[in-house]
Amino acid sequence: MFTFHISDELELRILENRHAEEVWSLVSLNREYLALWLPWVNHSIYIEHTQQYIQAELERFAKNSGFSCGIFYNQNIVGCIGVHEIDWRNKKTSIGYWIGEAYQGKGIMTNACRSMITYLFNQLRLNRVEIRACTANLKSRAIPERLGLKHEGTIRHAELIYDRYYDHEVYGVIAEEWTN
Amino acid sequence: MFTFHISDELELRILENRHAEEVWSLVSLNREYLALWLPWVNHSIYIEHTQQYIQAELERFAKNSGFSCGIFYNQNIVGCIGVHEIDWRNKKTSIGYWIGEAYQGKGIMTNACRSMITYLFNQLRLNRVEIRACTANLKSRAIPERLGLKHEGTIRHAELIYDRYYDHEVYGVIAEEWTN
Amino acid sequence: MFTFHISDELELRILENRHAEEVWSLVSLNREYLALWLPWVNHSIYIEHTQQYIQAELERFAKNSGFSCGIFYNQNIVGCIGVHEIDWRNKKTSIGYWIGEAYQGKGIMTNACRSMITYLFNQLRLNRVEIRACTANLKSRAIPERLGLKHEGTIRHAELIYDRYYDHEVYGVIAEEWTN
Amino acid sequence: MFTFHISDELELRILENRHAEEVWSLVSLNREYLALWLPWVNHSIYIEHTQQYIQAELERFAKNSGFSCGIFYNQNIVGCIGVHEIDWRNKKTSIGYWIGEAYQGKGIMTNACRSMITYLFNQLRLNRVEIRACTANLKSRAIPERLGLKHEGTIRHAELIYDRYYDHEVYGVIAEEWTN
Amino acid sequence: MFTFHISDELELRILENRHAEEVWSLVSLNREYLALWLPWVNHSIYIEHTQQYIQAELERFAKNSGFSCGIFYNQNIVGCIGVHEIDWRNKKTSIGYWIGEAYQGKGIMTNACRSMITYLFNQLRLNRVEIRACTANLKSRAIPERLGLKHEGTIRHAELIYDRYYDHEVYGVIAEEWTN
Amino acid sequence: MFTFHISDELELRILENRHAEEVWSLVSLNREYLALWLPWVNHSIYIEHTQQYIQAELERFAKNSGFSCGIFYNQNIVGCIGVHEIDWRNKKTSIGYWIGEAYQGKGIMTNACRSMITYLFNQLRLNRVEIRACTANLKSRAIPERLGLKHEGTIRHAELIYDRYYDHEVYGVIAEEWTN
Repeated sequence: MFTFHISDELELRILENRHAEEVWSLVSLNREYLALWLPWVNHSIYIEHTQQYIQAELERFAKNSGFSCGIFYNQNIVGCIGVHEIDWRNKKTSIGYWIGEAYQGKGIMTNACRSMITYLFNQLRLNRVEIRACTANLKSRAIPERLGLKHEGTIRHAELIYDRYYDHEVYGVIAEEWTN
Repeated sequence: MFTFHISDELELRILENRHAEEVWSLVSLNREYLALWLPWVNHSIYIEHTQQYIQAELERFAKNSGFSCGIFYNQNIVGCIGVHEIDWRNKKTSIGYWIGEAYQGKGIMTNACRSMITYLFNQLRLNRVEIRACTANLKSRAIPERLGLKHEGTIRHAELIYDRYYDHEVYGVIAEEWTN
Repeated sequence: MFTFHISDELELRILENRHAEEVWSLVSLNREYLALWLPWVNHSIYIEHTQQYIQAELERFAKNSGFSCGIFYNQNIVGCIGVHEIDWRNKKTSIGYWIGEAYQGKGIMTNACRSMITYLFNQLRLNRVEIRACTANLKSRAIPERLGLKHEGTIRHAELIYDRYYDHEVYGVIAEEWTN
Repeated sequence: MFTFHISDELELRILENRHAEEVWSLVSLNREYLALWLPWVNHSIYIEHTQQYIQAELERFAKNSGFSCGIFYNQNIVGCIGVHEIDWRNKKTSIGYWIGEAYQGKGIMTNACRSMITYLFNQLRLNRVEIRACTANLKSRAIPERLGLKHEGTIRHAELIYDRYYDHEVYGVIAEEWTN
Repeated sequence: MFTFHISDELELRILENRHAEEVWSLVSLNREYLALWLPWVNHSIYIEHTQQYIQAELERFAKNSGFSCGIFYNQNIVGCIGVHEIDWRNKKTSIGYWIGEAYQGKGIMTNACRSMITYLFNQLRLNRVEIRACTANLKSRAIPERLGLKHEGTIRHAELIYDRYYDHEVYGVIAEEWTN
Repeated sequence: MFTFHISDELELRILENRHAEEVWSLVSLNREYLALWLPWVNHSIYIEHTQQYIQAELERFAKNSGFSCGIFYNQNIVGCIGVHEIDWRNKKTSIGYWIGEAYQGKGIMTNACRSMITYLFNQLRLNRVEIRACTANLKSRAIPERLGLKHEGTIRHAELIYDRYYDHEVYGVIAEEWTN
C-alpha cells in the first residue's frame, strides 16, 4: 500500500516481512540466471534467508542509511533495487539491482533506476549517485550507460565471484547533471 | 514518494527523519490544542524530540511491530496516525491519531482511520483493531463511532493526564465485520 | 529465603534459576489441564523453556517493569502469579496466574491475588490493577469476582487459542476502592 | 515484602528502585564514616548514583551472578550486604558489607553475614565463601573472625584508597566446615 | 612493546588508550596543516575525541575488520596509518594516513605504506589494496604514485570538504603485482 | 608482524583470528598433557572454540581490560600467556599461561612471564601483578618462585577441576620490588 508510483504498471515498495515469500519464489525461479553475477543467490536456500535479508534492510532503513525496494510490475514482484550505505557526510550513495530473467529487456530496470536516482537527488537531497558493474556484465552496465551516467574508472579485482576476480566499471552522476 | 494513496487530496507516508521539521512545526503550532489530551506534547520542546520519536517508530516498523504515518493533506503534513504494538499471536492491534486544529472537522481523520483499518485487515491480515479514547474526549470518540466500531467497555482510571485519572472508552472491530 | 509471607502455609517468592526444575515438573504434571487456556504450555517442552522464562522475568524485574512469583504452599511450588508490564506513567498494571489442578479450590489463588494486589497498591503505589480472563474460563473469572473487582467490559476476539478467538472479560480495581 | 527473615528485628531485602532514597539518605548521613574505607562513597553525590547502583545490582541478580540486599533493622535500612560475582564453575563467591555508624556494635552485621553465608551454602549450594578486609580495618576484619572463617593469606597492595595502597586479609570458609 | 619493526628509526604500533595524549598533542600542534584536507581535525578538540577514536579503532581490530597504527619515528608518534574496512569476501581494503608537517618529506610515509601493503598481502593474504586521494592533494597522491600503484579512475564529487566537493583519484595494486 | 621482541628466538604476539589454526593444533597435540590442570582443554574440541576464544580476548584488548598473546619460539606458537582482567582502579592484574609439553623446561615461560611483568609495570604502569597456581601444580608454581614473587597465601578450594577442589597458592609482586 505504501508505494512509489512510477507508471501504471510499475511501482516500488519498501520490502516488508510479508513480501518474503514472493521475493524468495522469484529468486528460486531465477537461481541459475541470477547466480551468474550474484554469488549470494547460492546461499539463499531457504525462505529464512530472504526474511533475514528483508529484516536487515528494514533496520538500515530505520537507521536512515539505505533501503531496499521490491520492483512491482503489474502488482507482482519482478526484481529488487536497493540503495547501499548512504554517506550523508559526503551526500552520496550507490545503487544495486537485479530482475527476473523473464522481465529483462522491457525497460523496467532502467525506469526503476531513473526514478530512484530522481528520488535520491530530489527527496533525499544527495549530491552523487554511483552505479558499479562488472566489466563483463554487459546487461548491468547498459543501465547506467542508457541513463547517461559518466564512466569514471575501472577498479581492478574489485569483486571475487567463484574464485575469479572481476573488475568493476564505475559510473557516476552529480545532482546538477541530472535532467531525467 | 512512498505513499499510501487515499484520495487526490489525502495520503499517508511512513515518517522519516526528513519529515521531522514539518511534524515539529505542526506540533508547535498546535501545542495548546493538542496538549489538552496528549501530555507528551508538553515534553516535545525541541525538534530533537520529534527526531527521536520518528527514529523510534522506524525501529518499530523494522521489527514489524507497528509504525507511524504522517497524514498528508494536499501535500502538507496535517496530523499523524500510528499503529501501536501489533500482537501477531492474537492478530490484533490498536490505533492512535492526532490532527492540527485547523484541519479538524473535514473528515480527514475518519478517512485516514478507515483506510488504515482496511490496510490492517486486508494487507497485514489482522483480525481485530481497537481504538481507545478518554470518555470526555468527544472528538476522538467520534471517529470509531462514525466508523461503526462496537463499544466494548469502559476501562476506569486508564490514563493519568496532568494529575487526574481518566477513563477509556474501548471500541473494537473484527475483520469479518469490516465492510468499509 | 526471600519470601513474601502470606500465611503459615502460603508464600510467594521471586522465581530464580534454581526453581526451574520444580516449576517445570509442575507444568509437566498439569500439561493437559493447563493447556486448555494457556497455549504456551504446549511449547514448554524442555526445562530450558522454563529456564528461559525465569531468566526473562528476572530481566523484567531488574528493569522495574514487572515480575513473576512462584506460589509456595507448604514449601512446594503449586503455581505462579505474575505482574505484567507495569505502566508507571499511568500507575497501572495487570495480573496473570495459574495453579496446578490438585491445588485448585483451596482458596490459594484468591489469597495470592489479594496479597499481590495489596502489595501493588501499598508498596509499589500503583493506582489501578486489572485482571482479564476468557469469557468461558469460569474458574479464572471467579478470582476477580470473589475479590470484588469491577467488571468493566468485554473485549471481543482478544485472544487466539488453538485457531479460535476468545473474548476477554475485563475486571479492574482502583487503589481507593481496595479495602482487602 | 519479599524479605529474608533473620530475626524479629532483622531482615534482608533485595534492593529495588523504590529503596534508593532511603539508601542514599543513609549514605549521606554516614558519608565521612563510610568514606574512610569505601572510596565510592565520595562519588555517590546524587540519588541518581544510588539508583544506578541498585539498577546494576538488579541486573546482576537477573543474570544469576550476585546481588545486593538492604539490611533492615526494625524496618529501617541500616546497611547493605552484597554477594560479589558468583563463580559458578568453581562454586565460590565473596561477600562485602557496610553499616551506618549508629548501628555499629549491635551484632547486626555478624548476624546478617552469618545468615547470608548459610543461604549461599544451603540454598545456592556454593562450596566456598570469602571475605576480604584491609589489614587496618579492624571492625571489618572482626566479622569473619567472629564467624570463624579461616585466615588464608595477606594480599599485598590489593586496594588503592586515596593514593595509598592497602593490603587485604583474606578469610575463607568451605561448605563442609560451616556449622553456624 | 608490540611493534611492527620497519627500520631502526621507524615502527608501527596498534594505537592503545595510553597513546591518546601523544596523538592528540600531535594533532593539536598540526591542526591548521592537517585540517586542510582532513575536516575531522576541526572536531577533534578535546583529548576525549582522540580516546574515542582509538577505542573505536580497537573495536574494529577486535572484529578483524581493520585497524589503526601510530607511526613511531625515533620512538615518537609522528603520524597515523590506518587500514579501512577490510572486505574479506573480496579480499581487498584501502589505506589512509596523515603525518605531522615537521616529519613530512623524509620518506616516512612512503616507507610506512610500503610496509603496510606488504603486511596486507603477505600476512593478511588480501588481494587488492587501494589508496584514494583528492585530485588537488598532490602530497597525498605522491605516495601511491611513488609506490607504483596503478591509477584506475577519477571519482567525481567523492568528498565534501568545507562546502566544496572534491574528486578522488583512485590508485590500486593487486597482490601479484607487488614486488616491493 | 606486531611483535613483542624478547630475544632472537622468543617473541609474543597479540593473538588474531589467523593464528587460530596454529593455536588449535598445539592444543590438540597436547590435549592430555594440558587437560591435567586446564579443564577448558576438554571443551576445546573444534577450531571454532579457539576462534571464539581469540575473538573474546581481542574484545578484552579493545576494552583495555586484558589480552592474550601467543608465545612464538623460533616463529612457531608454543604456548599462550594472558593478562586477566586488569583492575585499573587498584592498578593490579594477574597472569595465566600454558605451554606445549615439548617446549617445557627451556626457560621459555619464565622469560615470557618476566617480560610480560616488566611490560605491565613499565608500559601499563600497573602496581601489582599476581600469579596463582594449584598447590600440587609444581611446574606452574616454579615460574613465580623463580621470578622471585612473594608467596602471600593459600586460598582453599579455589578451583574445581574434575569434581575435586584444589587450593591456590598466591604469589604477588609490587612494582617497586621488580628489578628484573
